[in-house]
Amino acid sequence: MKNKSIQQEFKQLLALHSFATHRYLLAISGGIDSMILLDLFRQTSANFQVAHCNFQLRGEESNGDEMFVREYCGKYNIPFHSVRFDVAVYQRTGNYSVEMACRNLRYDWFEEIQQQNQLDVLVTAHHLDDNIETFLINLSRGTGLKGLIGMQIYNGKIFRPLLNFTKNDLLAYAQSNEINWREDATNATDDYTRNKIRHHITPVLKQLHPQFDENFLTSLNHIHGNYQIIQQQIEEIRTNLFSGDNPIQIEISQLKKLQPLETYLHYLFEKYGFYSSKEILKFLDAETGSEIKSATYRLIKNRENLLLQTREEENEEEITIFNDLIEINSLNLKFVKSINPHENATEIVDFTSILFPLKLRKVKEGDYFFPIGMKGQKKLMSKFMKDLKLSKLEKEKVWLLCDQKDQIIWVVNYRLDERFKTTKTSKNFLNITVC
Amino acid sequence: MKNKSIQQEFKQLLALHSFATHRYLLAISGGIDSMILLDLFRQTSANFQVAHCNFQLRGEESNGDEMFVREYCGKYNIPFHSVRFDVAVYQRTGNYSVEMACRNLRYDWFEEIQQQNQLDVLVTAHHLDDNIETFLINLSRGTGLKGLIGMQIYNGKIFRPLLNFTKNDLLAYAQSNEINWREDATNATDDYTRNKIRHHITPVLKQLHPQFDENFLTSLNHIHGNYQIIQQQIEEIRTNLFSGDNPIQIEISQLKKLQPLETYLHYLFEKYGFYSSKEILKFLDAETGSEIKSATYRLIKNRENLLLQTREEENEEEITIFNDLIEINSLNLKFVKSINPHENATEIVDFTSILFPLKLRKVKEGDYFFPIGMKGQKKLMSKFMKDLKLSKLEKEKVWLLCDQKDQIIWVVNYRLDERFKTTKTSKNFLNITVC
Repeated sequence: MKNKSIQQEFKQLLALHSFATHRYLLAISGGIDSMILLDLFRQTSANFQVAHCNFQLRGEESNGDEMFVREYCGKYNIPFHSVRFDVAVYQRTGNYSVEMACRNLRYDWFEEIQQQNQLDVLVTAHHLDDNIETFLINLSRGTGLKGLIGMQIYNGKIFRPLLNFTKNDLLAYAQSNEINWREDATNATDDYTRNKIRHHITPVLKQLHPQFDENFLTSLNHIHGNYQIIQQQIEEIRTNLFSGDNPIQIEISQLKKLQPLETYLHYLFEKYGFYSSKEILKFLDAETGSEIKSATYRLIKNRENLLLQTREEENEEEITIFNDLIEINSLNLKFVKSINPHENATEIVDFTSILFPLKLRKVKEGDYFFPIGMKGQKKLMSKFMKDLKLSKLEKEKVWLLCDQKDQIIWVVNYRLDERFKTTKTSKNFLNITVC
Repeated sequence: MKNKSIQQEFKQLLALHSFATHRYLLAISGGIDSMILLDLFRQTSANFQVAHCNFQLRGEESNGDEMFVREYCGKYNIPFHSVRFDVAVYQRTGNYSVEMACRNLRYDWFEEIQQQNQLDVLVTAHHLDDNIETFLINLSRGTGLKGLIGMQIYNGKIFRPLLNFTKNDLLAYAQSNEINWREDATNATDDYTRNKIRHHITPVLKQLHPQFDENFLTSLNHIHGNYQIIQQQIEEIRTNLFSGDNPIQIEISQLKKLQPLETYLHYLFEKYGFYSSKEILKFLDAETGSEIKSATYRLIKNRENLLLQTREEENEEEITIFNDLIEINSLNLKFVKSINPHENATEIVDFTSILFPLKLRKVKEGDYFFPIGMKGQKKLMSKFMKDLKLSKLEKEKVWLLCDQKDQIIWVVNYRLDERFKTTKTSKNFLNITVC
C-alpha cells in the first residue's frame, strides 16, 4: 500500500508489543513472505529462532527449501530447527486432507519447539491477501461477525507483522532489499479454496476500486471495533440475566425481550458451545424437562427458566461399597458398622439384612422401592420424585444405596426402604452419616 | 436455493407486510427478474400498478422492451405508466455517469408516479446476486457494517420480495412457469463494477462452498442483527453522554472512556453528518475554540466539552432598521422613538446622535467600540468578549447595533457605546426594550 514503509511499521509493531520481553519463533518456509520476515527480524535486536517444516511433498524441491533456510540461518548465526514429516502417514490417522494434515503437524511441532526453547510468541508471514482469502472463505461458510474479522496482527500467541501489507508490497520490498527466496516454497500447504480465491477472485476485487486494499483494511478494522462493542453489550446482558453458577439460571421471559433475539441468543450461548441460535430459539418454547447438549454444557428447560449446567457434573459412575468402613467423599457420606445404633447417624440400617457389596448409583427407569412407613407398599422412584416435585436437575442428583441384588436400601437423603429398617431384634447396625 | 418455493415465500412476505393495506408500484423493465415479479403479483389480490422507464439507450430494442411490458399490462388489465428519457441531456445537467443518470431519473419518476396515484410502496426485482454485488462493492469502498448489510426485503418504502432468491432460482421459476421476458432488458443501467462482479467474481464465489448462497444469506442476516444490537448500544450511550439540545453538550473525558473509541465515535457522530471517526478522534484533543463542520452540524471544542450545534443556527444575516418603530422578533428587541426616555427600557440611546438606517449584525474581526463608563477608551470587541469569558458559541451569538457608518451603538444585551449615550441635553430618545 502507498505511503507505508514495511520497515517502519514493522519496528513500530515490535515496539508496541514490547519485543524485548518476548522470545520469538519464526515460521520460515523459504518463500518470499517468510524470507522478508526473516530479513526484518535480522535488522532488530529481537530475540528469535527459526523453524522450518519439510513436508517432503515436492521431493528434492522440498529438501532444497530446507537447505536454503538452514544455510541462511547458519550464515547469520540464527538458531535453526527443522523437521521432516511423512504427511501421508499422518493423513491416515484421522482421514485428514493434505492441507489439514500439514496444518496440524506444523502447529503441533511449533508448539513443541516453543516449549523446549522457551519461545513465547510464534511469528508467521501472513499478509493482507491471506486475510482477504480468510474473509471470503468465512463469508462463504456463513460465518458470524467473528469470522469476518479475520486474523489479527497479534493475539497474544501469534504475531503477524506483515498482515497489513499486500503481496505487491512484499514483492516491492523483496526487490529493493535484494531478498532471496525459493519460488513456491509456501504453496505446498495452501488448499484448493485458497488458491482459487488467490488466482481468480482477489485480482478482480482489487480492480473494483483503486484503493481496494486500504478500504478492505478499513472495513476489517471497523468490523473488529463493532465486534468488540457487541461483546461488551453481551457481557452486560449476561451479567443482568444469567444468575447462579452451576446451574446458571436464566428467566426465559427476560431473554425473549432481547431484540433481535436470534442474534442475542447466538452470542449469549456460543460461550457454552451452543452454536445454532435457531435451535435455541426453538428450545425457548420446548416442554419443561427438555434438554439439549453441547460438547461441554447441557441446556435444560425448567418451567419459566433455562438452566445451564456443565457436563462434568453428569456423574454416571457407580460407587461400590465393600464390607468395610468407608467414607464416600464426593457424596459426603460416612458408613460405619457398629453393634450400636449411633445417636447422630442420619439413617441406621439393619446390617444383617443387607448383602455386600453395596453400591451407590443414580436412578434408572423402572426403579422402585418400599418407602418406610408405607406399610410395605411398593413405589416407583419416578412417582416418588414426582410427588416430591423435584426438578429435572434435582432428580438427576438423586443417589440410591442398593444391595448386591440391586434392591434399594436408601434413597440417599430422602427415604429409607421398609425392608432394611432396624427392628427390635437388630444386633448389628450400619450407621450412615451425612457429613 | 433448495427447498424454497418462490411462490410460497412471496405469499408469506406479502402477508407479513399486510399487503391489503398497501398500494404497490412495480418497477418493470421487461427482463426476467421483473417479469417474474409481475407474474407473482398477478396471482394475488394485491393492489398494484406498473411503471416502465424507457432510457432509449438501445434504440429499437428499448422501444421493444416498452412495447412488451405495455402489451402484457394491457392483456391483464394492469394500470401501466411509462416514460421516455433523454439520458444524455440529463447527464450534462450534473456531470453524471450513465448509470447514475438512469438511477436518478428512474427513482425521481417513480416517486412522481407514486404520489400521483397514491402508491405507497415501490416494488423492485432485486435478488440475492444483486445483494452479493452490493456487499462486495461496499466492501471495496471501505464501508462500515451498515454497508455490508446490503439491501433489505422491506424498508418501509421499497419492497424487494425476490431478495432471498438467486438468479438461478429465478431462471428455474421462469422455465417451469413459462414466463416470457426480454433478454438484456435490465442490463442497460448496470454499471461497469456490477457487471465485473457479476461475470467474474460471483460465479467463482459460488464455487467456494456448495451452500454459498444460503451461507451468504446467513452471514447477511447475522450482520444485520449485529448492526441492530450496536444501534441499541449506541443510543443508550448517547442518552447517557449527550445532554441538552442545541447545542448538545458532551463531556470529552466521558467519551474517551469508550473502547474501542474510534468505532464508538463513528456511530455517535455519523448521525450529525460527521463520517470520519479519525478526524473526530483527533479533534478531541484540539485547542479550545476549534471547530469542524459537517453539512448540517458544527462540532465545537469548548474546554472539557464538545458542543454540537445545528448549522441553521449560524445566522449570518444582517437586519436593517429604518427610521420607524420596529420590533426585531428573532432577537426579541423592540425599538421605540420617543421624546421621553422610557422607564422600563433596557437601554436608551440619544436619538439625535445616530444616523439611520441602523443595522443589527454579528461581530466581525477588527470591530471595536467605546464601552460606556470607560472615559471614551476604545476597546476591541474580541478583547471585550474575552474579558467576559464568553464561550465560542456565546461569542457567535453576540449581536451589534450599528449606525449608518457602521459605528457600534450597542453590544446587544451587554454594553452601550459612550458616543451614543443620553446626556442632559438629549431631546429625542431611542428606547430599546428586550421583550
